[in-house]
Amino acid sequence: MPFMPRFTHPRLEDVPLDLALHALADPNRLGMVARLAATERLSCTDAAPCDSIPKSTLSNHLKLLRSAGLIETTQSGREMINTLRRDDFDRRFPGLLDAVLANAAT
Amino acid sequence: MPFMPRFTHPRLEDVPLDLALHALADPNRLGMVARLAATERLSCTDAAPCDSIPKSTLSNHLKLLRSAGLIETTQSGREMINTLRRDDFDRRFPGLLDAVLANAAT
Repeated sequence: MPFMPRFTHPRLEDVPLDLALHALADPNRLGMVARLAATERLSCTDAAPCDSIPKSTLSNHLKLLRSAGLIETTQSGREMINTLRRDDFDRRFPGLLDAVLANAAT
Repeated sequence: MPFMPRFTHPRLEDVPLDLALHALADPNRLGMVARLAATERLSCTDAAPCDSIPKSTLSNHLKLLRSAGLIETTQSGREMINTLRRDDFDRRFPGLLDAVLANAAT
């Protein structure tokens, strides 16, 4: 059987601006992106905005962040590891993530 | 009877970042903001993204843009005139609208 990636990730050129903004327009998702920007890589559990978030909600947030080209999820042993697609995203939407993160931090 | 404004506009400090991003995360609304950024003032009809948009949809878009502190709507004779609250918005979210508009234009 050929290798099948568990998650799919879009080419950034296929991500429309409104999807990128929609992915960032949620305090939980934005918090996850800000944490990944500061931490480089996080398991799905560690990426969660709080311990009490339902697994399906967390999974949906991660899925939307992936579909917007913001994060990459890869398997590492038994863990799923998330990283920010910072370079890809910055190349597609210059200055956008910087502006959003700067305003999120205030 | 005291003067009652027909529309209310939030103080920008009361607008959360996620609401601002949500308001911009729609191609029709973003197009209206981009047009206002280029045109200074537009009637509601002229601000519409297309002629076929239902009046209630247009009204909801304008209402959301107002609630996010992006536009001001004032009465001028029989017309409602929309302007971008550019300075207010830029002071609250430095660099954000510039980054979004630059990416919308490409």
